[in-house]
Amino acid sequence: MLRSCLARLRTLGALRGPRGGARPPATDTGPALRLFSSEEVILKDYSVPNPSWSKDLRLLYDQYMKKCEDGSWKRLPSYRDVAHLDSKLIKEEQMPQARIFIRSYEDGLGFEFVMFHNDVEKKTVCLFQGGPYLQGLSGWLHGGAMATMIDITSGMAASIGERIVTANLNIDFKRPVPLYSVVVINSQLYKAEGRKLFVSCDVRSVDGKTLYAEATSLFVKLDPEKSST
Amino acid sequence: MLRSCLARLRTLGALRGPRGGARPPATDTGPALRLFSSEEVILKDYSVPNPSWSKDLRLLYDQYMKKCEDGSWKRLPSYRDVAHLDSKLIKEEQMPQARIFIRSYEDGLGFEFVMFHNDVEKKTVCLFQGGPYLQGLSGWLHGGAMATMIDITSGMAASIGERIVTANLNIDFKRPVPLYSVVVINSQLYKAEGRKLFVSCDVRSVDGKTLYAEATSLFVKLDPEKSST
Repeated sequence: MLRSCLARLRTLGALRGPRGGARPPATDTGPALRLFSSEEVILKDYSVPNPSWSKDLRLLYDQYMKKCEDGSWKRLPSYRDVAHLDSKLIKEEQMPQARIFIRSYEDGLGFEFVMFHNDVEKKTVCLFQGGPYLQGLSGWLHGGAMATMIDITSGMAASIGERIVTANLNIDFKRPVPLYSVVVINSQLYKAEGRKLFVSCDVRSVDGKTLYAEATSLFVKLDPEKSST
Repeated sequence: MLRSCLARLRTLGALRGPRGGARPPATDTGPALRLFSSEEVILKDYSVPNPSWSKDLRLLYDQYMKKCEDGSWKRLPSYRDVAHLDSKLIKEEQMPQARIFIRSYEDGLGFEFVMFHNDVEKKTVCLFQGGPYLQGLSGWLHGGAMATMIDITSGMAASIGERIVTANLNIDFKRPVPLYSVVVINSQLYKAEGRKLFVSCDVRSVDGKTLYAEATSLFVKLDPEKSST
């Protein structure tokens, strides 16, 4: 659905104010940026190792960080909150509670992941470890959690630079994913037609031998004028 | 993915032991049922109103509870945990942490919902309110959260009585859903071929006028012998 990859990064640029620059001003479309007492949590980049990461996840992370050294791949930072600069939809007093879904859990309990993007190849790879709060049937990852990660990884392959929405998400689930295990989500933008962006995706075990899911998705670029409201 | 609707209810039947019956014994397939200090939380049925429910959600709940009076519809209870009777996949010491994904948040923060099922019509309706931890773009529900609820509601329409897995989930997202708003997810089993169960689904506003998403899904019944391992 609605997402804005670069918008998040841009907003984060603004959020860096307290560390080295000026705070963003109030805008015509919403209240001034209010930073909360948990400012550091909001500013934290969650796409780095924490103690809950398994050995598999750390090893893969190191491998992809190596690929980043020549600039062909880039690690994508990920945050819990974007400070709600553009929403008029929900009551002000409820706003500070809001969290980005995929970063709404404490470390290790939910979605542990890091994404890497290759802009030339139009590929995004997500290294994902599902924690105990993502359970479906006992011991297995919930299909909705898998769908969420496929959606977000495919969305990154479709567009790092623009506001897009998911128009269609079509997933074939091949095998259930064991809870706590690490999977590799590979997504690729394979066609662009006007505002339409077509992405393919698969989910595999760390050794690549087990195929857990395959998916295709369609994203649509938003009109910048309309999407701001 | 893997789910077991009735299995959960059955397990819950076993879990009722401490209230009025005997505790379930140890089995050949797993450790004896270990109830935790937060036993009451595990036993709690989350599909009933709590203070976070909006007026819309309460009104719809009351309407569907009225439909239950003649027995044509039934409210489906929903729990956080099924006590892990059948899993050998994850380390024992990690087991107590696991929660069913859609009930992993505290009241009001995540997935607030109640489902009603009509067995004659093979329909399941879910009344769903997305809380602040399910945010996608600022002020809007994350597409992955919507996909999760479509998956779970469709799964209930496919089978209340057997272990099934989601084989395919195909969602057309029509409009973004505002955070905190209530939507009605209507799912219907429309075809059964051997072990294959085909379900259609739509997501609408409370007044039915706004279509947020449409979906089809394919579920497959598991072989009871194989699925127990």
